[in-house]
Amino acid sequence: MNKQTLLETRQRISAYVHNTPICTSHLLDDISGGKLFFKCENFQKMGAFKMRGATNAIMQLTKAQQERGVVTHSSGNFAQALSLAAKNLGVTAYIVMPKNAPKVKRDAVLGYGGIITDCESNIKAREEAAAQIVAEKGATFIHPSNDLNVILGNATAAMELLEVHPDLNCIISPVGGGGLIAGTALAAHYFGTQCKTIGGEPMVTDDAFRSLQTGQIETNITTNTIADGLRTQLGDINFPILQQHVDHIIRVEEEEIVKAMRLLWERLKIVVEPSSAVAFAAVLKNKAYFKGKKVGIILSGGNVDLDTLRFS
Amino acid sequence: MNKQTLLETRQRISAYVHNTPICTSHLLDDISGGKLFFKCENFQKMGAFKMRGATNAIMQLTKAQQERGVVTHSSGNFAQALSLAAKNLGVTAYIVMPKNAPKVKRDAVLGYGGIITDCESNIKAREEAAAQIVAEKGATFIHPSNDLNVILGNATAAMELLEVHPDLNCIISPVGGGGLIAGTALAAHYFGTQCKTIGGEPMVTDDAFRSLQTGQIETNITTNTIADGLRTQLGDINFPILQQHVDHIIRVEEEEIVKAMRLLWERLKIVVEPSSAVAFAAVLKNKAYFKGKKVGIILSGGNVDLDTLRFS
Repeated sequence: MNKQTLLETRQRISAYVHNTPICTSHLLDDISGGKLFFKCENFQKMGAFKMRGATNAIMQLTKAQQERGVVTHSSGNFAQALSLAAKNLGVTAYIVMPKNAPKVKRDAVLGYGGIITDCESNIKAREEAAAQIVAEKGATFIHPSNDLNVILGNATAAMELLEVHPDLNCIISPVGGGGLIAGTALAAHYFGTQCKTIGGEPMVTDDAFRSLQTGQIETNITTNTIADGLRTQLGDINFPILQQHVDHIIRVEEEEIVKAMRLLWERLKIVVEPSSAVAFAAVLKNKAYFKGKKVGIILSGGNVDLDTLRFS
Repeated sequence: MNKQTLLETRQRISAYVHNTPICTSHLLDDISGGKLFFKCENFQKMGAFKMRGATNAIMQLTKAQQERGVVTHSSGNFAQALSLAAKNLGVTAYIVMPKNAPKVKRDAVLGYGGIITDCESNIKAREEAAAQIVAEKGATFIHPSNDLNVILGNATAAMELLEVHPDLNCIISPVGGGGLIAGTALAAHYFGTQCKTIGGEPMVTDDAFRSLQTGQIETNITTNTIADGLRTQLGDINFPILQQHVDHIIRVEEEEIVKAMRLLWERLKIVVEPSSAVAFAAVLKNKAYFKGKKVGIILSGGNVDLDTLRFS
């Protein structure tokens, strides 16, 4: 793992992903006290950063592996990402999905040609269903967040941001399974100038916050957050990267997430999902820290189920 | 009125408005059958194209006029636009606003330093309140849509679109008071290559459709459309431009507007207001006409009251 690894990753996947726009807003700067640069992964192909990691992971397989397909379990965006990345590369994608996944994400997987297997909404059920597909089809399992090639792919979002704004004081990303913030932290380490990586995490699923405190991977008691992309937990591949390169994690309440999401919709005029708003909510929660700083914020995606969306 | 007038207008206001991005989507192309280019005025300053006309109208006043201020009546976006444009130019803006205007628009006017006078939600009440301010303050009345300088300012959105895509077969804009489509039609006439201008209008406020049929300005019986920016009607300055340069108007039902808006939010990941969706709904309503054509669509704005928004 070094700078070159990341540069090669970016080169490898560049034809398959968007270099997404960076939004700014004087009003949100005034509200937060910082100078904010929003990396808009909601405009990424299939609507989320996960396209980056999925594409890289598939491209790093051997031709023989690619011919037998890939399999994953996902609460939503990685399912779509692996399906579309696989389609782009001529590979079959098997997707294990919890039954309660948003309909808009389920439909999108089918639209991208993914083959869905339903399971219960817990990690054990997901893992068992995926293992069965690996055994039956010889497909390669690709974890949504605890996979080094996925992490490296995810890192390219922050690399693009730092290419335009190399003097950021910090970059904030949401923390769910740890795959995005691990990649972000590597990018900030190798391409930033003393650029700190900070996490935003829902209070009710604060496994990463606690894990960094105790030094071991902690679990969540509940997954009851509106930020449906952040219900998963850290793994043994990304956790050491967080330990080494993440400065700290800011936890936010559910109502703070909704308020932050609303500000993004109203002021930037863009559709972002609750998980994206967690990173911005973290900035609003700790304004004193960010005051006067140049702050990168990874808006992770924009796949929202408008049927269930309510701001009031 | 000629090409030079439009070029000078664009030059005049360029420091005060954004050259907004143009979005495309393979999926929306597939759904519509056309090749669509969305001019994203939701990303314009204050969130709508009206910033263009308001800025131009104020800049065309004499210094003495500017010192006495400007006044308008508006259902929302023009109120914000005149307030911000006036603020940018160091001019006082008096805004006559119907009591039932969305709170988000009212708050924005105040935020931009506009001075609000409340009135009943009908044209007569608005005009009387505005006339009183003209009499008392010596302010210049600027109509939101029936003003040639406003129309010329609005034209710059389509000019920017045609500069990037000079071979558009047609441009669609929503039709409310007629100020946007009149400007769009002038731009298409002077800068397009046989580029037709087409209107999208809510069925329940189809005064423009009927006016073009009868050859005289018709009125609306109701203003009960979700497209709150399109509740006003044509005027004697913009109507002749529509008669000369608008090819035809497509009327759409309320549920078609909501469906089109939802597609724009879900697929482009951008926040657009119902009035914007009317233009896209018109394309979806008449796919046979647009099949295989290069189609410009003016997304007029993105100021939505999220408190009242419901997709289901």
